[in-house]
Amino acid sequence: MTPQPALIIGSVAIDRVATPFAQSDAILGGAASYASIAASYFTPTRLIAIVGADFPASFRRRLQKHRIDLTGLQVDPQGKTFYWSGKYHENFAGRDTLEIQLNVFENFSPLLPAAYRDTPYVMLGAIQPALQNHVVDQYAGRKRPFILADTFDLWIHTTRPELLRLLRRIDLFVINEDESLLLTGARDLVVAGRLLRKMGPRIVVIKKGAHGSVLFHPEGMFAIPAYPVAKFVDPTGAGDSYAGALLGYLASVNRTDFAALKKAVAYATAVASLTVESFSVNRLSAAGRPAIDARFRALRELTRF
Amino acid sequence: MTPQPALIIGSVAIDRVATPFAQSDAILGGAASYASIAASYFTPTRLIAIVGADFPASFRRRLQKHRIDLTGLQVDPQGKTFYWSGKYHENFAGRDTLEIQLNVFENFSPLLPAAYRDTPYVMLGAIQPALQNHVVDQYAGRKRPFILADTFDLWIHTTRPELLRLLRRIDLFVINEDESLLLTGARDLVVAGRLLRKMGPRIVVIKKGAHGSVLFHPEGMFAIPAYPVAKFVDPTGAGDSYAGALLGYLASVNRTDFAALKKAVAYATAVASLTVESFSVNRLSAAGRPAIDARFRALRELTRF
Repeated sequence: MTPQPALIIGSVAIDRVATPFAQSDAILGGAASYASIAASYFTPTRLIAIVGADFPASFRRRLQKHRIDLTGLQVDPQGKTFYWSGKYHENFAGRDTLEIQLNVFENFSPLLPAAYRDTPYVMLGAIQPALQNHVVDQYAGRKRPFILADTFDLWIHTTRPELLRLLRRIDLFVINEDESLLLTGARDLVVAGRLLRKMGPRIVVIKKGAHGSVLFHPEGMFAIPAYPVAKFVDPTGAGDSYAGALLGYLASVNRTDFAALKKAVAYATAVASLTVESFSVNRLSAAGRPAIDARFRALRELTRF
Repeated sequence: MTPQPALIIGSVAIDRVATPFAQSDAILGGAASYASIAASYFTPTRLIAIVGADFPASFRRRLQKHRIDLTGLQVDPQGKTFYWSGKYHENFAGRDTLEIQLNVFENFSPLLPAAYRDTPYVMLGAIQPALQNHVVDQYAGRKRPFILADTFDLWIHTTRPELLRLLRRIDLFVINEDESLLLTGARDLVVAGRLLRKMGPRIVVIKKGAHGSVLFHPEGMFAIPAYPVAKFVDPTGAGDSYAGALLGYLASVNRTDFAALKKAVAYATAVASLTVESFSVNRLSAAGRPAIDARFRALRELTRF
């Protein structure tokens, strides 16, 4: 087995997050930040994203600390970094966006640098489906990589046809439970998973937050609970780091069979449980691979009978 | 290992249930009906409950079919059987009680028949905590059995001190997630489970419905997803059959160590998944042990990585 590199495409942002218990400063956010750091624990990781001139050097250093290849990190010297501010409700049941400034993200066009073209494992974070399709278009005439894509409810509501087109072009679709019901019209997760596989992707993962996740693979289903976190701080980025770890693990073993996918889902679960223990990528970045491996083993203990 | 008998104490009722998709006739209901049939798949099972003169012979035959010892099934010839009618909300998110007639249940005093006194595994269904304590009182001066108890939110609101007293006298407490948070004031399940164990019971199981369940044991935690049901009909009795199967399995192996508890939780999960596939005990009663064993094995497959 030769470890393969992974490519993460998505948003890098500055966030400001309020939970029922605490309030963050301006922190490193964005799906691609979480996902690339998560993937980097498993395999060499490349990033495509855009930031503005205001992007703090400390945030860049954070990504560099994980040896993430930033060749594809565009910097728009005229613009400001994508900014998101949100507030979680009581018991983390939903959240409100308080402020969103797309800034440089408005003109983001994810272009594959020549050095990235042959990356065999690619994650398309939950950016507009048209941009996700634009990435896939760039593989016209060459071997398409293994593609994982994520989405979120806004795109299901506003650009469904473009999203449906994307689904026919990817291998692995990662989506949360509510969105899976919204997209398929199904009433429960098992039916939603099956319907999503019929819409294109060979493999589907439905995330249920604190209730774990379920994998739908041609060879069968797999279900895993969330790792029982004792000090829950902020759910932001949990799903993104989950997807990044999932892809990173698959790339590291260069396999996408059922057994590899199950392990990938367990690693993703372990990584997401670290993410939620702090604001931003702090805990995720500080954890180190041994802490991830320990949670992977603990998940095995927790679920084996 | 010598299989031991199990004793189930609780309600036997006539139910009328409406779901978003269907409406039942007057059907066999009550926690003890579900729990005793579930337990009977694992070990000889005894029942203590009360019914009225109107209790249909076909419902009695249903219990007899499972060789449940009905010595403790009191019949009040002057009264009518406990009646409950309810309606589930859209997506089964909660339910309303449309009508409740306690009838003979109002005067229910669960008395241990002499022949039941030495039953080493006992389930106290979610009847009033005062009645549950009344059962435990009858073990004064003799060896107390292994006791599993269930409760529900009404008792947490109205008779908390009596419930707290019960918790100090039982071995295994089974409760659903919302109720565990209500009773402990915890914000999440992991904390709730730990707090509940400090309130008395050595072992706690928190049920999360379609999201599975979590076991808290002195030796550690165990988590299992729900079995992915394809044809969901009615959740009524799922938790009761879960608890009955849990106790029945423990009695059948006459063990309550961590390994036995994990298996018991997996069998309970399998049994509950059959219960929800029909109104009343129909599917549960028709399933047979091989169907339960098949789901137990499927759960192992579903969760192993």
